[in-house]
Amino acid sequence: MTAVKDSVHDYISLDPLAQDLVDTTEFQRLRHIKQLSTVRLVYPSANHTRFEHSLGVYHLASQALSHLDNLDISGERADHLRAAALLHDVGHGPYGHQTEHVIMRETGRHHDEIEWLLTDAEAGHPTDPPTNPTVHDVLTDHGLDPTRVAAHIRGEGELGQLVSGELDVDRMDYLVRDAHHTGVPYGTIDTGRLVRELRYRDGELVLDEGNVQTAESLLFARGLMNGIVYRHHVSRIAGAMLERAAERLLASDEADVSVERFQRMADHDLLVALREHVPELGRRIERRDLYKRAVWAGLGDVPAGVVDCGHADERAAEREIATQAGVDPADVVVDVLSRPSLKESNARVVVGGVVQRLEEASELVGALRDAERAQWRLGVYTASDHVDSVADAVSNVLGVRVGHVD
Amino acid sequence: MTAVKDSVHDYISLDPLAQDLVDTTEFQRLRHIKQLSTVRLVYPSANHTRFEHSLGVYHLASQALSHLDNLDISGERADHLRAAALLHDVGHGPYGHQTEHVIMRETGRHHDEIEWLLTDAEAGHPTDPPTNPTVHDVLTDHGLDPTRVAAHIRGEGELGQLVSGELDVDRMDYLVRDAHHTGVPYGTIDTGRLVRELRYRDGELVLDEGNVQTAESLLFARGLMNGIVYRHHVSRIAGAMLERAAERLLASDEADVSVERFQRMADHDLLVALREHVPELGRRIERRDLYKRAVWAGLGDVPAGVVDCGHADERAAEREIATQAGVDPADVVVDVLSRPSLKESNARVVVGGVVQRLEEASELVGALRDAERAQWRLGVYTASDHVDSVADAVSNVLGVRVGHVD
Amino acid sequence: MTAVKDSVHDYISLDPLAQDLVDTTEFQRLRHIKQLSTVRLVYPSANHTRFEHSLGVYHLASQALSHLDNLDISGERADHLRAAALLHDVGHGPYGHQTEHVIMRETGRHHDEIEWLLTDAEAGHPTDPPTNPTVHDVLTDHGLDPTRVAAHIRGEGELGQLVSGELDVDRMDYLVRDAHHTGVPYGTIDTGRLVRELRYRDGELVLDEGNVQTAESLLFARGLMNGIVYRHHVSRIAGAMLERAAERLLASDEADVSVERFQRMADHDLLVALREHVPELGRRIERRDLYKRAVWAGLGDVPAGVVDCGHADERAAEREIATQAGVDPADVVVDVLSRPSLKESNARVVVGGVVQRLEEASELVGALRDAERAQWRLGVYTASDHVDSVADAVSNVLGVRVGHVD
Amino acid sequence: MTAVKDSVHDYISLDPLAQDLVDTTEFQRLRHIKQLSTVRLVYPSANHTRFEHSLGVYHLASQALSHLDNLDISGERADHLRAAALLHDVGHGPYGHQTEHVIMRETGRHHDEIEWLLTDAEAGHPTDPPTNPTVHDVLTDHGLDPTRVAAHIRGEGELGQLVSGELDVDRMDYLVRDAHHTGVPYGTIDTGRLVRELRYRDGELVLDEGNVQTAESLLFARGLMNGIVYRHHVSRIAGAMLERAAERLLASDEADVSVERFQRMADHDLLVALREHVPELGRRIERRDLYKRAVWAGLGDVPAGVVDCGHADERAAEREIATQAGVDPADVVVDVLSRPSLKESNARVVVGGVVQRLEEASELVGALRDAERAQWRLGVYTASDHVDSVADAVSNVLGVRVGHVD
Repeated sequence: MTAVKDSVHDYISLDPLAQDLVDTTEFQRLRHIKQLSTVRLVYPSANHTRFEHSLGVYHLASQALSHLDNLDISGERADHLRAAALLHDVGHGPYGHQTEHVIMRETGRHHDEIEWLLTDAEAGHPTDPPTNPTVHDVLTDHGLDPTRVAAHIRGEGELGQLVSGELDVDRMDYLVRDAHHTGVPYGTIDTGRLVRELRYRDGELVLDEGNVQTAESLLFARGLMNGIVYRHHVSRIAGAMLERAAERLLASDEADVSVERFQRMADHDLLVALREHVPELGRRIERRDLYKRAVWAGLGDVPAGVVDCGHADERAAEREIATQAGVDPADVVVDVLSRPSLKESNARVVVGGVVQRLEEASELVGALRDAERAQWRLGVYTASDHVDSVADAVSNVLGVRVGHVD
Repeated sequence: MTAVKDSVHDYISLDPLAQDLVDTTEFQRLRHIKQLSTVRLVYPSANHTRFEHSLGVYHLASQALSHLDNLDISGERADHLRAAALLHDVGHGPYGHQTEHVIMRETGRHHDEIEWLLTDAEAGHPTDPPTNPTVHDVLTDHGLDPTRVAAHIRGEGELGQLVSGELDVDRMDYLVRDAHHTGVPYGTIDTGRLVRELRYRDGELVLDEGNVQTAESLLFARGLMNGIVYRHHVSRIAGAMLERAAERLLASDEADVSVERFQRMADHDLLVALREHVPELGRRIERRDLYKRAVWAGLGDVPAGVVDCGHADERAAEREIATQAGVDPADVVVDVLSRPSLKESNARVVVGGVVQRLEEASELVGALRDAERAQWRLGVYTASDHVDSVADAVSNVLGVRVGHVD
Repeated sequence: MTAVKDSVHDYISLDPLAQDLVDTTEFQRLRHIKQLSTVRLVYPSANHTRFEHSLGVYHLASQALSHLDNLDISGERADHLRAAALLHDVGHGPYGHQTEHVIMRETGRHHDEIEWLLTDAEAGHPTDPPTNPTVHDVLTDHGLDPTRVAAHIRGEGELGQLVSGELDVDRMDYLVRDAHHTGVPYGTIDTGRLVRELRYRDGELVLDEGNVQTAESLLFARGLMNGIVYRHHVSRIAGAMLERAAERLLASDEADVSVERFQRMADHDLLVALREHVPELGRRIERRDLYKRAVWAGLGDVPAGVVDCGHADERAAEREIATQAGVDPADVVVDVLSRPSLKESNARVVVGGVVQRLEEASELVGALRDAERAQWRLGVYTASDHVDSVADAVSNVLGVRVGHVD
Repeated sequence: MTAVKDSVHDYISLDPLAQDLVDTTEFQRLRHIKQLSTVRLVYPSANHTRFEHSLGVYHLASQALSHLDNLDISGERADHLRAAALLHDVGHGPYGHQTEHVIMRETGRHHDEIEWLLTDAEAGHPTDPPTNPTVHDVLTDHGLDPTRVAAHIRGEGELGQLVSGELDVDRMDYLVRDAHHTGVPYGTIDTGRLVRELRYRDGELVLDEGNVQTAESLLFARGLMNGIVYRHHVSRIAGAMLERAAERLLASDEADVSVERFQRMADHDLLVALREHVPELGRRIERRDLYKRAVWAGLGDVPAGVVDCGHADERAAEREIATQAGVDPADVVVDVLSRPSLKESNARVVVGGVVQRLEEASELVGALRDAERAQWRLGVYTASDHVDSVADAVSNVLGVRVGHVD
């Protein structure tokens, strides 16, 4: 078997199906999409890609299957699952989650809804002359059903939980990988133990007896990485600027970029397109000359209507704030984080022989949910010259209690 | 400056005072006292010693001082502090915390109360012909006051908090070191950040603004390491057996071991002495042929009187249980953990410019305290043949609700 | 002091000068230039950039200076050296060494000859409206002499050896960093020891007594990383394709890219420009649909005239081979590695109180040079369909003894 | 399957046979024998034991077998091999290699000649009442032939090469493990690649095509670890003192320790016995109050007759030197290292389809052998007061050219 050297899991053995999938246009594109998009502006070592992450998820899925082998998950069942693990991120647009909302508004699809891509023989072909095979062709050539693979990627069915669910191998890989590459140690969970302790009980993926703390460690890791890495304010500012810039690119007549072309872009395509067609924001992102926080307000200081506002409201607010502050509307970015959830709290663990949801089994889940809420921030960003005037306008327009931002 | 290679912190530079202290009889003895005593029976790589740990604490104290340098902590103030960091564990008996209660009952002193050892010119001298200098002599030769060093080790005064307190460098070193050597990743906190973010506010050691999560990470790390490493039931069983064996050794006329001699023993001395004078337990510990759990009961299943019982009660209960179960009293071990506390909850952090105790600043402290309580277990151990009869006797004698132990 | 988290060296403290230099356009551009260019097509985790590497070199230079402090290297001498360490790579074109020859042929300058960039107030300004300051301005604002910094970067003078020489901190950082990110362990040298053992003797940088093996470890690390990472044939194929594509881009009337604009491109700019203007090669590089080896011949099988041929000869040979093989000249790539050298063999070490060159002090240098020679390979690459016909043509045209390539 | 957490290889799965073997008296004893004996006096983190190392060798053997599976090495063939990997070190005496010569002189057996221990039902039983089962009983209970296991441990037969040979998994484990625990990075070879590239050709264990450098990396790692770790002069001094002390213990009528009892001692037993019966040396070793080098001479300065002298000559020389120097003979230690060999040079690699010995395939083997020779040192050690007089006496008695020792 071919093996690829990975800086996190050492050698990853690829079966023949995986080798062929890796060579597709869709999968090779993941080499050019960074796992943590704008986080690298804070943690300069965090340049890892969805290519290596996807290999890691495939690897952990293979390991989990080998420890679940009493369940007779083998042959083509295992093949579909491993293919789903490998391909789970091919639906991402440039800069991953950072453009997910933009694409969602135009196509109605999340990044993990890729049945269209896997089942349509033409969808994977680039518009320019194809060189590599497509995922669709490789799957069907190997006798796999693209529809089943797509369902696994959406987390459906018994096995789908391994790829997308509260105990999925996706989150196991990204926590340790993001820790390795940022240098922030908090994500270093015990993947070796997790893949060994997974079981199926009545069709549900659970952690076996004695693993309440193993499950809690996932929540701690996520909570700390959220605050210190994923939602670091510098990364959020750059990300919000990027999202605005992407919207303007799609709206630009001169650029003439369709959403179909947009979602096939890689990071470098978007960076070059922005510099050309949305030059002010494009250059700022490229050179890390970022807006500053005019407002950084917690849940208690923000009216509920603002917390739950939609995209159109956000844009309307930006215009209004800009007007009141006397600045160009293009220079105000309102960044409303969605309300905190804690997906892992639904993870299932066996306690005293009985399957429980983690929030029943652990004293900590409720408190972690509170802590997530306490970390929530509304951000409004602008050029450093306008910070004070924009802060005042935010207070007026949104009714946000505005304090001093460090 | 001389430097020592450490597997956790890489090179540790030693100033001339530290070099001389390292060469003393008292400090060299720490080479022979394992940091995690009986934990190595569960995690076979955990053979690290208090010698290397003490070097690590000295190193982190030096780093913290260099980042606190605006406070003019230099010259002899820094010397006293660094000496205290290096020497903080020389008061430990063989097997460290595992014999602390035994020694405490006889001498009335905790392991960090070592003024007697530092200030008495004779105390450090071994009874056999001395070869190495003593800590007392080195300190006074370098112009340091042993009394001040001893006070720092007890955590007294402004600087003492760095060595023993809620944010001390002792816990920073042991968490990362124990993680490195057990292979359990949960202790990998961000020591680089911690030593950079320490500040003094009104004489109190605090973490600077923006570090609530940094402080929480200490609690998470401790909570997970407690459950998965420090209080693993196999380590507790071996530890409780060792404590009983040590008591019998001290009580043995034939062995004739004074507490003074006992507390100067190293691990190997105790192991050999037990095999000779308490052979049944001694051999079992040496060859990991351990008792099994007859009872493993949570707080809810144990009467409050039992939870808070003293040492004499424990021994009386063992005798009574043995009688009822019809086994040799030497074969029953009752192991009552002290009620869970959460020292780190008093750590101080700056939030919005104001110093707060962590439990005011963090939603999580209360829940972590609950989780600690939920993890508490009373253990009663015996030879595998007697597990059932002893369990029944425990139910009768202590009124503990006894379930099945996995 | 500000600190940046690095996945290799943990926290890197930045002095005020360094902070300002990091914010320049020239330095921010290094975020977009990968350290190992095409190596990531073999080792998918190797996505690290010259940005983080440059921070690492600055860090090791600071550490080396702190251990050399008896020499009174402080104040503005140290400032110039640290600035040079930080800036040593800002002269790289897109894809670093892979385009160095192309740029060299047009400008006559190596990547480390950047006096033009540092001393000219206009040179650092991008053609589009500037947002960030330039290196020139920051240096002069801080009272530094750009000419001296440029000289250090060329390795001139006593201190310059620390930045570019046989014992420079540049190679120390890249070896450990490349090992960390590829996952190939061979580069993990002991940087902590190296920076502690550097000394100046008669103006020459040397390793202190007892470090012959420390110096040898640098050679072993380089030799193994050369064979297994840096000169892996897949990376060489992609690199040679990239170099040809870059030449065609510069020669294209339609693209109209000047060498001045070219050398300021970042990786993403080049990738997009190639896809547009040299689409066949551009797409192949982007999607890792690479040429195969038609010929892979060692020194013994290649006439000396071919080994030492120049660039024009290489291109002429490609055309001739293509004609004889009946394929498009654009589809043949001749890749002649320069003759192996072993720069580290000139490193100086103190042996028995006397400074010696490493090749005098070590039995191994000669053999390592032979081993480098044995690893040398001439490569000729083409599309998989033409491998056999091109191999035959190479035999005829270049007189290379052609064997079977695995 | 049960799994053990290891700080080097993460989880190690134990099959039922391995679980039972781990519980034997002989294997549990390995918990108390440090892998690197006196090296911990230089590298304080190096406290790892032959217990964890043996688990690691078992793990790598299992991995190698899984990649060699085309050879149908399964069932009982694999069981015998895995048992041999696990048990390969149970024949070591206290302090491992440091007492090997002492035991060899008395019993005529090396540590890997343990047929007597495996085949005799009584040999494994301790003299005190047995608690744990013996290796002999476990092997025969599982239907294995102790004689075959013992042959594998001696490196005999096709499979035996995996346990003891030029490419054995023993050296793979100890190099990475010693690097991990000392903190010296040079031993970090690529075990993942090595176990994947092993093949059998005509009954010989070889590395597959493309691995000359992989094999060279083993030699580099050994060469560097030899010089910097294994043969560090402080470790050699302590080791030579320990060997002398062990001889005196065995010769002591008062101590009355038979070689049978001696070779079953663990480190702590020996340390306590030495302190009691050879107190001067025993205390010095325990407190690292070591002799100093009076002489440290290379091959060129030592007459051939001295280099090749036997044990009796060594002792006679010590007495003579002591007499001439006017010191107690017990205070002079002559430490003659055996002539350097380079076992790995016989490792076999496939080059161009043909199996070659590494020294044919690599330019480096000869030079590494020269380098080993250049590192060879004769040491003569004594108390610091006698260094000069002993050096003079060595010059007279042995004809060694004596220089200044740093």
